[in-house]
Amino acid sequence: MNGKMKALVKHHKGYGAQLEMVAIPQISENEVLIKVKATSICGTDVHIYKWDEWSASRVNPPYIFGHEFSGEVVEIGERVTNVKVGDSVSAETHLVCGKCPQCLTGKAHICKDTKIIGVDTGGCFAEFVALPSTNLWKNPKDMPYDIASIQEPMGNAVHTVLAGDVIGKAVAVIGCGPIGIMAVGIAKAAGAAQVIAVDINEYRLQLAKQLGATTIVNSKCQDPLRVVNDLTDGHGVEVVCEMSGHPVAINQGFKMVTNGGRVSILSLPTKPVEFDVTNDIVFKGITIQGITGRKMFETWKQVSALIHSGQVNVKPLITHRFPLEQYEKGFDLMMDGNCGKVVLHP
Amino acid sequence: MNGKMKALVKHHKGYGAQLEMVAIPQISENEVLIKVKATSICGTDVHIYKWDEWSASRVNPPYIFGHEFSGEVVEIGERVTNVKVGDSVSAETHLVCGKCPQCLTGKAHICKDTKIIGVDTGGCFAEFVALPSTNLWKNPKDMPYDIASIQEPMGNAVHTVLAGDVIGKAVAVIGCGPIGIMAVGIAKAAGAAQVIAVDINEYRLQLAKQLGATTIVNSKCQDPLRVVNDLTDGHGVEVVCEMSGHPVAINQGFKMVTNGGRVSILSLPTKPVEFDVTNDIVFKGITIQGITGRKMFETWKQVSALIHSGQVNVKPLITHRFPLEQYEKGFDLMMDGNCGKVVLHP
Amino acid sequence: MNGKMKALVKHHKGYGAQLEMVAIPQISENEVLIKVKATSICGTDVHIYKWDEWSASRVNPPYIFGHEFSGEVVEIGERVTNVKVGDSVSAETHLVCGKCPQCLTGKAHICKDTKIIGVDTGGCFAEFVALPSTNLWKNPKDMPYDIASIQEPMGNAVHTVLAGDVIGKAVAVIGCGPIGIMAVGIAKAAGAAQVIAVDINEYRLQLAKQLGATTIVNSKCQDPLRVVNDLTDGHGVEVVCEMSGHPVAINQGFKMVTNGGRVSILSLPTKPVEFDVTNDIVFKGITIQGITGRKMFETWKQVSALIHSGQVNVKPLITHRFPLEQYEKGFDLMMDGNCGKVVLHP
Amino acid sequence: MNGKMKALVKHHKGYGAQLEMVAIPQISENEVLIKVKATSICGTDVHIYKWDEWSASRVNPPYIFGHEFSGEVVEIGERVTNVKVGDSVSAETHLVCGKCPQCLTGKAHICKDTKIIGVDTGGCFAEFVALPSTNLWKNPKDMPYDIASIQEPMGNAVHTVLAGDVIGKAVAVIGCGPIGIMAVGIAKAAGAAQVIAVDINEYRLQLAKQLGATTIVNSKCQDPLRVVNDLTDGHGVEVVCEMSGHPVAINQGFKMVTNGGRVSILSLPTKPVEFDVTNDIVFKGITIQGITGRKMFETWKQVSALIHSGQVNVKPLITHRFPLEQYEKGFDLMMDGNCGKVVLHP
Repeated sequence: MNGKMKALVKHHKGYGAQLEMVAIPQISENEVLIKVKATSICGTDVHIYKWDEWSASRVNPPYIFGHEFSGEVVEIGERVTNVKVGDSVSAETHLVCGKCPQCLTGKAHICKDTKIIGVDTGGCFAEFVALPSTNLWKNPKDMPYDIASIQEPMGNAVHTVLAGDVIGKAVAVIGCGPIGIMAVGIAKAAGAAQVIAVDINEYRLQLAKQLGATTIVNSKCQDPLRVVNDLTDGHGVEVVCEMSGHPVAINQGFKMVTNGGRVSILSLPTKPVEFDVTNDIVFKGITIQGITGRKMFETWKQVSALIHSGQVNVKPLITHRFPLEQYEKGFDLMMDGNCGKVVLHP
Repeated sequence: MNGKMKALVKHHKGYGAQLEMVAIPQISENEVLIKVKATSICGTDVHIYKWDEWSASRVNPPYIFGHEFSGEVVEIGERVTNVKVGDSVSAETHLVCGKCPQCLTGKAHICKDTKIIGVDTGGCFAEFVALPSTNLWKNPKDMPYDIASIQEPMGNAVHTVLAGDVIGKAVAVIGCGPIGIMAVGIAKAAGAAQVIAVDINEYRLQLAKQLGATTIVNSKCQDPLRVVNDLTDGHGVEVVCEMSGHPVAINQGFKMVTNGGRVSILSLPTKPVEFDVTNDIVFKGITIQGITGRKMFETWKQVSALIHSGQVNVKPLITHRFPLEQYEKGFDLMMDGNCGKVVLHP
Repeated sequence: MNGKMKALVKHHKGYGAQLEMVAIPQISENEVLIKVKATSICGTDVHIYKWDEWSASRVNPPYIFGHEFSGEVVEIGERVTNVKVGDSVSAETHLVCGKCPQCLTGKAHICKDTKIIGVDTGGCFAEFVALPSTNLWKNPKDMPYDIASIQEPMGNAVHTVLAGDVIGKAVAVIGCGPIGIMAVGIAKAAGAAQVIAVDINEYRLQLAKQLGATTIVNSKCQDPLRVVNDLTDGHGVEVVCEMSGHPVAINQGFKMVTNGGRVSILSLPTKPVEFDVTNDIVFKGITIQGITGRKMFETWKQVSALIHSGQVNVKPLITHRFPLEQYEKGFDLMMDGNCGKVVLHP
Repeated sequence: MNGKMKALVKHHKGYGAQLEMVAIPQISENEVLIKVKATSICGTDVHIYKWDEWSASRVNPPYIFGHEFSGEVVEIGERVTNVKVGDSVSAETHLVCGKCPQCLTGKAHICKDTKIIGVDTGGCFAEFVALPSTNLWKNPKDMPYDIASIQEPMGNAVHTVLAGDVIGKAVAVIGCGPIGIMAVGIAKAAGAAQVIAVDINEYRLQLAKQLGATTIVNSKCQDPLRVVNDLTDGHGVEVVCEMSGHPVAINQGFKMVTNGGRVSILSLPTKPVEFDVTNDIVFKGITIQGITGRKMFETWKQVSALIHSGQVNVKPLITHRFPLEQYEKGFDLMMDGNCGKVVLHP
């Protein structure tokens, strides 16, 4: 397809981004062109927008950023067989090498040569995006585009919560950003007996409650360890989903988990964290998991099924919607924190 | 405790049972005496009541039968430390050897030297029952006795459904006796995307629907294979819980399961069953599990948590309650099939 | 590459095959041309050679058959990046769709739309073979071609044995064709405490012994159930690898497995098999697995590592080597049964 | 049994221990009296002997210490059914509560109310020891007592190595004390393709080599990260068994593990350890396990089978044997480090 399109471009090595008219991308024979219907703002996008240390070291302006979206296939390369024009699709953000030991053994999500859409390559804050067909995920016809656009971050939450069993268990979600809030809903849908949501942002704790938290703990006002102790007859929770990245909160997670429990860490602490290995890990016999990305495509299948079946209702989590042109409002909200997911419509 | 108590005694090698006054059992130092508050009728009890071939080969009248119950601890042996007088308890029905390889490696539920309460030893269709303390399970104070009494069969359902992952999956429950109906509720609580209940008893299919079945299939009227095919885009279900014991239904289960799926069999077919091993097992790469009893006590912990948290609401399943004296009504209902669980109050 | 090559062609719908000169295959941009260095005869090839019922219903002569091989890459398509000219490679035999739920969730080996090299497409009984690059497995430089050519069937054995844990366990391998013999060596390498090999072919039982069987049982002379009983203090084996396809032997496997054990079935019985579901599956609480193909490419990685590290020495298993021209000798030996693997050199 | 026996008594709150004549312990009805045939010295015993900070805070002299042993049953309590007079036995060191959630769900080895034989209760550095029958493990008749006495620490090694799959994988054992050396042998027996042993004690590295290490690395002379990198084509090892307790070595373990790998920690660092959670845990998607004790009694079954089958030959690891009277020689050797296991004969 030829012509121009609107796109949100990270235009310089500094704060902000700007809306520009750019060429619609051309597809190669293994690629697909998608008309973007909804795109949501990730914390990573905020880092790039604000231009923090990490962004400065990783991304190369000018380029189109954004990686969470849903859209309609409008053109397919000649070798593409898995989708067709008219399909509703979203996309896995990890572009992987396909030939390392991890890729060859079902662990492509931790390929060492991963590139990330919208970080290392052009993204989806635009009217159109061109992507390799192998990264696409087909959405059910009746899944609303807004909902479909937040499947990628929901995949992180699913990957974290379902990295082990939660049924009948007490689960703590530490850190209730949008992914933490989704994790609450997923744990509940997966049969957790208790889902204890911990954060310091009251707005988001209320969203966590709406998604099914059985207890919310504002750790500015309450000691999470004491609350967990009371709720579990002193035994502690069986599962901790660490999504805060804060060293104090992380260590609280290790204290509140029961012997033999699981701590699944999705967060990315900016500095090294100190652990009492002997007492909090070895003697407790716990399992700790680093979680990144989404299993390709087992996690996507789970996300799609949980949403489509109604087992998880993520609708309340999309608190704001704007046309792409009003991106500044969206980013301001995300920086402010009083929101769930913010969806932009190009 | 001395004195007499009411008890439902399998008094002879033939049809029926009769209510008698018998001595309250004496406990040894490792045992506990429980005042039975509620006891439910199992299919096994019906076999014994009707005196079929299996009963004739296994049980030795006269004895008190019954094994599903809840009650209050009224006396404890001098070496008992895990429960105290006043506690609400239920009991695992398997009395195991504790020294075979299975018992020593966390698989006591498949101990080869298992004796079954109410089959091989005195049971709970009585005002009191004496049991080894190690078989007891403590109930939450606020769990109603009727509900607590059906945890043992619910354990079978939990053991079957949760013998693998069901989250986001399509699950078929074939055979909707009370345990099948519970399986439906458990699969739903565990996050199954679809729960397809199959039976020929419309009363029980309606109960299955109440417990959360997304589709009910009366296989007298509809072809379950066709229904499953339609509901799963031709892929089949990922999990089959076989609870019918019927050779045709069993084979349908093997046909409807998708490649790589799981068939967990709790039912006890009375005759050998023929399988197309090559096409239905090997080429499909499926896993088949024989399920018996309840993991001691992992399954009990799950059952208790699922009920107590409200994740599974088994209340609608208790369709009839009678005083122990009206046991005949209960057994008639069970033989008739138009009931869920029937609870007796001694 | 242009020109002619020798190839063993299944030339008609009947017994046998014939050596012909045919065109060297042309590769497309995602394919690779390989000079075949060694190719081994599979039981499937024997079926096709003999032209049994299954072959008549599946394959379309004239075509080149054969699918187990190793060779050197001599030409690569323009989009190929995972191998280069000069690499030693073997190939996964399953050509899969890449878009079904199984392919998308790490279970491509049970893709419903699988085509098999040398059965549904042209094979490797030839000087050259052209294959999609995504099916290739790179061999270590120092792995002899003969050894490398038998990795595909060894993958079946690895997939079967390692479908669960065997360390410190008693393992029975029922059926000691070449894959069964490999299974013996793999079980031993994986730490099995006992490896009991069962067959009626004394030649192959002796090979099984060479590969590490701790006991060999010729079931024409000895009752395998009694032997297992004696060797396991009456408990039975923890793992059965069923590779015989014979209904009596299969049922013996179900009898000899201990409660909670595993029966992994790789064999393809030609008729339905009758099971005592209640006593041999449900009450025993066992797990049965249908095994087909090789996990792509986890199994290949294991096979390569086990051979390359010397943990499994498959050398004694290659009992015969012929130039491709003497294929009749090879097929005669395979039909006769007094051989391990037969390798042909084109 | 009445009378006196020799015993090594931790007699005061300070360095050393002394041999005394004390009363033979009396058994209760659930206990067993064992004549100790061989007892080995654990690192924990050395801590108590040297009287370090941990000992001062935990143990209460005077008492008999020691917990690794084998012996012959000489008297059984009236309720004991799992062993009989004349049996050869060893014992699990953890005395657990039997009623906490961990004990009730197959995780008794991480019971919060664990007491340890020879630390919290009387131990086995004596002619006789009295123990609860439920803690005993029966040894095969033909297992030599010296070998049988080191099963308890070998259980730690088995629990660590087999906390996941090692077959065909590259495994690093960091820290080659006696348990590390055993871990090397176990990894090899379990089919590891490479076993890389790391330590700074050359004597013990040589023992590791004897037990099957494919590479030994003296980290005083070589950089373990570089060696691992070279041996694994830059990918890293798939499994790290951390047995050093040293913060630098621990962090090297996290650096050398490949994406998706496993780090199983048995060591007990004396101070908090700092981790790069983001890069070494989350982005790598690894799993970390705290390992303590032995699964009761799955680990014991594995240990016994691995020794008895000859899959692991621990004989070279017992480098020194003394009569109990020469305990000082044994402790001096252990403090010096130039030994494997030291066995004492009461």
